[in-house]
Amino acid sequence: MVKNLAALADGPVTVSGWVETVRDQKKVQFIVLRDESGAVQLVTPATRELVEDDPTSAAKLALTETISGLAHGSFVSVTGELKHDERVKLGGLEVKISALEVLSAANPETPIASDSSLDKRQDWRFLDLRNPKQNLIFKIQTTFLHAMREYWVDNDFIEIHTPKLMASASESRAELFEVEYFDTTAYLAQSPQFFKQMAQSAGFGKIFEVGPAFRADPSFTSRHATEFTSVDSEISWIDSHEDVMKLHEELIVAGFSAVKAKHGEAIKDLFDVEITVPATPFPRIPLAEAKQIIKERGYEVPRADDDMDPEGERQIAAYVRETYGHEFVFLTDYAASIRPFYHMRHADNPALTNSYDLIFNGVEISTGAQREHRVDVLEAQMRDKGMEPKELDFYLDFFRYGAPSHGGFGMGLARVLMLMLHESSIREVTYLFRGPTRLAP
Amino acid sequence: MVKNLAALADGPVTVSGWVETVRDQKKVQFIVLRDESGAVQLVTPATRELVEDDPTSAAKLALTETISGLAHGSFVSVTGELKHDERVKLGGLEVKISALEVLSAANPETPIASDSSLDKRQDWRFLDLRNPKQNLIFKIQTTFLHAMREYWVDNDFIEIHTPKLMASASESRAELFEVEYFDTTAYLAQSPQFFKQMAQSAGFGKIFEVGPAFRADPSFTSRHATEFTSVDSEISWIDSHEDVMKLHEELIVAGFSAVKAKHGEAIKDLFDVEITVPATPFPRIPLAEAKQIIKERGYEVPRADDDMDPEGERQIAAYVRETYGHEFVFLTDYAASIRPFYHMRHADNPALTNSYDLIFNGVEISTGAQREHRVDVLEAQMRDKGMEPKELDFYLDFFRYGAPSHGGFGMGLARVLMLMLHESSIREVTYLFRGPTRLAP
Repeated sequence: MVKNLAALADGPVTVSGWVETVRDQKKVQFIVLRDESGAVQLVTPATRELVEDDPTSAAKLALTETISGLAHGSFVSVTGELKHDERVKLGGLEVKISALEVLSAANPETPIASDSSLDKRQDWRFLDLRNPKQNLIFKIQTTFLHAMREYWVDNDFIEIHTPKLMASASESRAELFEVEYFDTTAYLAQSPQFFKQMAQSAGFGKIFEVGPAFRADPSFTSRHATEFTSVDSEISWIDSHEDVMKLHEELIVAGFSAVKAKHGEAIKDLFDVEITVPATPFPRIPLAEAKQIIKERGYEVPRADDDMDPEGERQIAAYVRETYGHEFVFLTDYAASIRPFYHMRHADNPALTNSYDLIFNGVEISTGAQREHRVDVLEAQMRDKGMEPKELDFYLDFFRYGAPSHGGFGMGLARVLMLMLHESSIREVTYLFRGPTRLAP
Repeated sequence: MVKNLAALADGPVTVSGWVETVRDQKKVQFIVLRDESGAVQLVTPATRELVEDDPTSAAKLALTETISGLAHGSFVSVTGELKHDERVKLGGLEVKISALEVLSAANPETPIASDSSLDKRQDWRFLDLRNPKQNLIFKIQTTFLHAMREYWVDNDFIEIHTPKLMASASESRAELFEVEYFDTTAYLAQSPQFFKQMAQSAGFGKIFEVGPAFRADPSFTSRHATEFTSVDSEISWIDSHEDVMKLHEELIVAGFSAVKAKHGEAIKDLFDVEITVPATPFPRIPLAEAKQIIKERGYEVPRADDDMDPEGERQIAAYVRETYGHEFVFLTDYAASIRPFYHMRHADNPALTNSYDLIFNGVEISTGAQREHRVDVLEAQMRDKGMEPKELDFYLDFFRYGAPSHGGFGMGLARVLMLMLHESSIREVTYLFRGPTRLAP
């Protein structure tokens, strides 16, 4: 590993990685070699012709010619002498090459460059991911998820894997992918909603899942994908959505603290972003109040229904940043008219729900709510939405044999990373993006 | 939480959970209340009629009648006096009820009983999961996965989420689910194989993924499902499949150690199984030698090709148990004829591959291999299998711009749990099983 070289004394070493650059000067050749841990400079004098009275010159000439012909991206293994030298910019050390083996030669013409379009870079995603910035994104993702999982496990949450093949829609009949399933039709889960609620009736108490969700959404925005990684958690015995928000912000703090501790400096270097661990409690603003606030700032949400729009989310985020110095805000108590039937409504005002959206740097990253667990109320709320309870009988059964009060949230992992790193699109932070016209590689 | 009661002093407490049993005696009523952490006995004197000169008797009568009418599974919240009493079998304590609130009443008729068929229990999986044995399975799964993730994170592995929607088959054209994808057809990933290899070309070095995989497999065995959770890892810079087996056994040891430490006693109580942390290195036996061994034991594999069969796996496992006292065995060096084109072949014998199957208690739980990373060899091996390299051009591209030597494995999570707990089917250890005729709930 390249990162281990710094701690070694001068002397013989072997390093492997891919060729990032070759500087092929007349008398000396330099290679910058990279592996997943970092980059190191390799150096060797160039031998341009055979010297008759030097029996080693044939081997030296061969080495020089091999290096001259090395394409960017070729994987090589190098044996040489490590030398610490403060004058070397790259890590203060270099390796003088004694032998070089080409393990896998790259095509000499690289199909993408640093200024290629995002779409072109997606075509060649495996080359794009060699960029240290891209590599860091997935290290950050690993750290972020692991910190949340440690929180869950330390607090006795159970991990579940809900099925992605379903006999019915999990959210709405629109945006649903159909699968040929033997003699019948299956649907891809749009969220683990129904099955994470099932865990509450099953007495699991507190659960989490990190897994794929699928939406046949034809839109091409920077925030949407047809397949995305959903971070879900659900807990029993809550009094209201306040308990869910408390869990949610503790998870965010756990994740951001770990990312800042492990990658804070690298993120500053490569993304020019300072990671801030958010203070708790995050600001909470009822949606109606939020709309009033942005109206006073001069923006009126141009929607016929009671929902917020993306510009409204940016406006309220700007207000929260100015007023509280905070990057996060919970917008709460959405109207029942724009929430799914399974959100619990206020006991004293059935027009509002015990729900929230979490906004991070001006974009919605998550929806959470207390769920309705009384089967008669659930059926009434379905009818209220024009749905036929019979169609979701398997789901209603979950509440016919006893169910505790409960609630939870679903959060889009890529959105969190995009906004954390000030990236322009979830495509930059998704391993392999899937959209209406993007199914490969 | 019920589990916290033992540490409390006698005095007022509130506990919530679901009703496991009611013993409705003439003069006294007992409830066994369960939550996800355990069970506790609740007790109250029964009041069977109004007493005219006792103004509290109406409330007492109401409480008695509520308890008499409590259906199994109802979720209740109880306030009362905790009293430690060694004579109480269940945990040496009980709670004398002062008030009981029914949060969610269950239907009085429970559709399944402890002797219901597996299929019937699957229909009512959320009730089946209330069984403490079933609940424990998912706590074990959580612990097992978290221990492996800690190993991965401690060793600088990167977590990836490969797409489940693909433009082509990931393993074979058979057993492939088709998805209507806008104007085209997508396929559900049968494994993350190609995309975890992509991470190697992308210079990620060491990666892991735990996620769903899909097989349109019409079989009804105890070991197969159409959707299952696959545990995958892949590493660069290996010399042979030996490096992969070393990683694999270290992960198994990490998982089993954590499960034994956290749940060993509960597993002994509920499953009558003693968890053994396997010694390393696990026995390794080349497949040809394994076949010779079981032939000497009197079993000849009745197959035309070079593969093992389930009975052969049980036979070699019995041999390993008798000879080495070990529950695991790596069968190695499978014939190229029965392995996928991407398995690397022996340098000195192209009829054999650098591959293995891991057998646990007589059943295959995993396949691993060194992968072929030389694109010309890959193309030749595809042709050798009757495949057309053009069809997987996007995959071959991964190796045209340099790739390190690498290898990895995929492991079925449910199989590991089934065999660990001596269960009869993966259906018992899967949250919601999916099979050819099972798509609900």
